[in-house]
Amino acid sequence: MQLDDLPTPCLVLDKGKLERNLERMSSAMRRHGVSLRPHLKTAKSADVARLATAGEAGGITVSTLAEAEYFADRGFLDITLAVGITPEKLDRVAELSLRGASMNVITDDVETAGIVGAHPARFKAFIEIDSGGARAGVDPNGDELLQIGRALGDKRAGVLTHAGHSYEGRTVDAIKKVAEQERLSVVTAAERLRAAGISCATVSVGSTPTMSHVERMDGVTEARPGVYMFQDVFQAIIASCTLDDIAVTVLASVIGRRPSKNRFVMDAGALALSKDRSTAATNEDAGYGLVWDIDGKPSFGEISIESVAQEHGVASSAKPLPFDQLHVGTKVRIAPNHACLTAAAHDRYYVVDGSREVIAEWDRVNGW
Amino acid sequence: MQLDDLPTPCLVLDKGKLERNLERMSSAMRRHGVSLRPHLKTAKSADVARLATAGEAGGITVSTLAEAEYFADRGFLDITLAVGITPEKLDRVAELSLRGASMNVITDDVETAGIVGAHPARFKAFIEIDSGGARAGVDPNGDELLQIGRALGDKRAGVLTHAGHSYEGRTVDAIKKVAEQERLSVVTAAERLRAAGISCATVSVGSTPTMSHVERMDGVTEARPGVYMFQDVFQAIIASCTLDDIAVTVLASVIGRRPSKNRFVMDAGALALSKDRSTAATNEDAGYGLVWDIDGKPSFGEISIESVAQEHGVASSAKPLPFDQLHVGTKVRIAPNHACLTAAAHDRYYVVDGSREVIAEWDRVNGW
Repeated sequence: MQLDDLPTPCLVLDKGKLERNLERMSSAMRRHGVSLRPHLKTAKSADVARLATAGEAGGITVSTLAEAEYFADRGFLDITLAVGITPEKLDRVAELSLRGASMNVITDDVETAGIVGAHPARFKAFIEIDSGGARAGVDPNGDELLQIGRALGDKRAGVLTHAGHSYEGRTVDAIKKVAEQERLSVVTAAERLRAAGISCATVSVGSTPTMSHVERMDGVTEARPGVYMFQDVFQAIIASCTLDDIAVTVLASVIGRRPSKNRFVMDAGALALSKDRSTAATNEDAGYGLVWDIDGKPSFGEISIESVAQEHGVASSAKPLPFDQLHVGTKVRIAPNHACLTAAAHDRYYVVDGSREVIAEWDRVNGW
Repeated sequence: MQLDDLPTPCLVLDKGKLERNLERMSSAMRRHGVSLRPHLKTAKSADVARLATAGEAGGITVSTLAEAEYFADRGFLDITLAVGITPEKLDRVAELSLRGASMNVITDDVETAGIVGAHPARFKAFIEIDSGGARAGVDPNGDELLQIGRALGDKRAGVLTHAGHSYEGRTVDAIKKVAEQERLSVVTAAERLRAAGISCATVSVGSTPTMSHVERMDGVTEARPGVYMFQDVFQAIIASCTLDDIAVTVLASVIGRRPSKNRFVMDAGALALSKDRSTAATNEDAGYGLVWDIDGKPSFGEISIESVAQEHGVASSAKPLPFDQLHVGTKVRIAPNHACLTAAAHDRYYVVDGSREVIAEWDRVNGW
């Protein structure tokens, strides 16, 4: 099967680019002497997870219980669910433990830590630390850190943070500073716990921007980046990668053209691409994604999708569009702003390796 | 089962509100003497479609081939696929025709119209008209209208438009003007076709804002609104409904709380809610959605979600948040900005009817 034969819109994954992205991160983490526990929230695929964990310790990170169950069913038995747990969700976690999975959850809540600590099942829990992103996590210098550490008791796995604010960095220097802030937050927390006689085995950090540029990782034991596997236009703009590294694109068809208005419409809109506008906050706004040709090359010139409706993506441009190459039915590939959100609307990957030949179909686990 | 027992995040549909929304639109269209061909792109559910077509002619509108196939499998055999068709997609349309479905496609492209006109299968096709939204469709006063009309030959079903720019209206008067522009565009097109000796049986319009306020529908034969079934915060802001009419909400759990920063975090983020920010373009920005209590009431005061990550929604407020009612595990219901996009991440509805009791689970068809 060839890309030309696929129903549109659909998700295309370039295996060669994926493997290069994986190797780059793996070797960086090896250099730093930390374990790589890849975050599968972007890929949500056992096939990708097998490649991403090859040569690593084997542990993975997930963002939903549905992912945890999917990966456990496929032999991944060391799983960190890195979104704050609620007491009610512990039943599904405990069931995975009973089935043989080594499960870790996270919390930044004293009351929840008490419930986790008293739970009869064998899972473990991280104390979530706020490294400056102000999304979740306790202050590494606050009292709650020690309270949660004590409440977790034997279930305490260590400390964990995600420097989500690395996405606000616009220069490599700015991102390096966030990486050091990320490191310091968990190392400080671990040292305070240990000074209080509370053990802290694992010290976990991770975001693709920080792990792409981090200089010091002393005191850190593991990293959990995710989007590095696929990369995307936003990551290219903030220098985590180049546009050529983007492994996942949306294959779409032209469904309408209006040369008089220098505009054409594709069958990939708000659902197939997501409404992520992260690139709008940079100097290189890519609209809702960059439009490349079916071979994934920017042969049409710089075209981005300026507006989307549910199933429509509309491209227009200040420069004349190449309508001689764009007919109804012409297939294009759209590089996404944010690979995690774009991929989430699709139930499978059509895998290629540098050509138009589809060499595999890989499934994905969506939902919760 | 009760809402309290559901895994979060998930989608909750209030049947009573749904039925009231359906009846309001059905009776409005009856008053205007036009057929209602409900657009199922929002609901993507056979159970909802059965209610939405009760007492109507039975035809439905869909936005993807996956929806067309799903609904045909469930006995809906008069289907308009209202997103521009490509030649390659005609095979799946033809297969539905062979299975007994009365299929309509749409196009605004002369070349595609020729291919449609020459196709051996028995489906029909609408000429898509641009009523001012500048997304798709031909100029009702241009030459292409007649060229496409002739090229479609026996397959010509009529003319069709969607006034997507009604979403830009901020007053009922502005939306009434768009409704009249929408009507005039297709009526003009139909009259020009007929004057040229080209028949035009069906004259089709439709968007929820325009159909909520339309005053004249002479010359129009059918309407295709969709989001009116569920409504959402954006539709409430532009006066298609009230906040109390919103039938679909996301049930979520509090997963973290930080009283010192007047902030709490829920397990519904960019995926469970979508990144739709349509309300930001109004005077009543609702962030990524309004946070109500588990009974769907605004008992917490006016709280909206100010930022989202993939699985995190963060609420903060200028006023002190009611942390005495918000603990880790507390369930809330989030009213979405844009019901179509929010629903699309979920594979089912948990149906309630004014209470916390879950009376049914209804499936959805996602993807393409």
